[in-house]
Amino acid sequence: MKLPVSTEWLLHCAASLAQLEAGATASAAQLAQYFDLPAPYLAKQLQALVRAGVLTATTGPRGGFRLARPTAEITLLQIVEAVDGVSSPYECREIRRQGRGALPPEECRTPCLLAQKMAEAHEAWRSSLAATSLADILAALPGWAPSRTRRLLANTAQDRP
Amino acid sequence: MKLPVSTEWLLHCAASLAQLEAGATASAAQLAQYFDLPAPYLAKQLQALVRAGVLTATTGPRGGFRLARPTAEITLLQIVEAVDGVSSPYECREIRRQGRGALPPEECRTPCLLAQKMAEAHEAWRSSLAATSLADILAALPGWAPSRTRRLLANTAQDRP
Repeated sequence: MKLPVSTEWLLHCAASLAQLEAGATASAAQLAQYFDLPAPYLAKQLQALVRAGVLTATTGPRGGFRLARPTAEITLLQIVEAVDGVSSPYECREIRRQGRGALPPEECRTPCLLAQKMAEAHEAWRSSLAATSLADILAALPGWAPSRTRRLLANTAQDRP
Repeated sequence: MKLPVSTEWLLHCAASLAQLEAGATASAAQLAQYFDLPAPYLAKQLQALVRAGVLTATTGPRGGFRLARPTAEITLLQIVEAVDGVSSPYECREIRRQGRGALPPEECRTPCLLAQKMAEAHEAWRSSLAATSLADILAALPGWAPSRTRRLLANTAQDRP
């Protein structure tokens, strides 16, 4: 059970974009340089965050990515599920219905208890990630962090034509 | 993020073995027939449960697998981690230390907050699975289930020489 390596990339990219001034953006190339990551693959992954409604992509010479919503409305779960999808890691193929021990259909009207317990565990994982927003992450950063991030990363508003 | 397909197999095998009489066993071939599963691959996976201390393997003509511990002392977590290992699905490669935005070492003495939050979610998943034992699963089965399982699956004590 492994999340893609890019999960770390996108969590950090989103947390960094959350530190920019309103209206400022960072391009995939800038984010790749900021974290020393492969730019083409990172760009593809950032598009997944756009599709998930976490980021907005703007075009043009100073275009790039910025958050699509306020930091309090973007959770770690939304970012992780944008990268990896929403399906549970446990796959129930209903083996209770097959083989010598196959249960009759009338005994299989409710979901298998083992699948239910696995689903509960997945929901516990999801709830934990949904309980942390980017605003929570920002609140825990040292005071000097946002200005440093802005200086090293962004297309600032001043850069704009 | 996917668990192996055999996770379902081993959860069901353990729950079935939990229904046998004390001292009774079922072989990999019998379990494979009971659930219509590929016997050689199932046998290999059952050995993972033996290594994890969940099952005991006995040899001889009536040998097979039985639980190594009382049902109340075997949790779903132990079974799932025997199949898939204990590592978190999230891999932190410390990208905060690399690239243009690399943080200085003195700012990296504590684990990355994003990695901490991902670890908390994994612990929530583990706690959920650790909260259910095979005894809990047995208690939720209909009354007729254990005798049916014994009849269709096991080397019963009477079979023994």
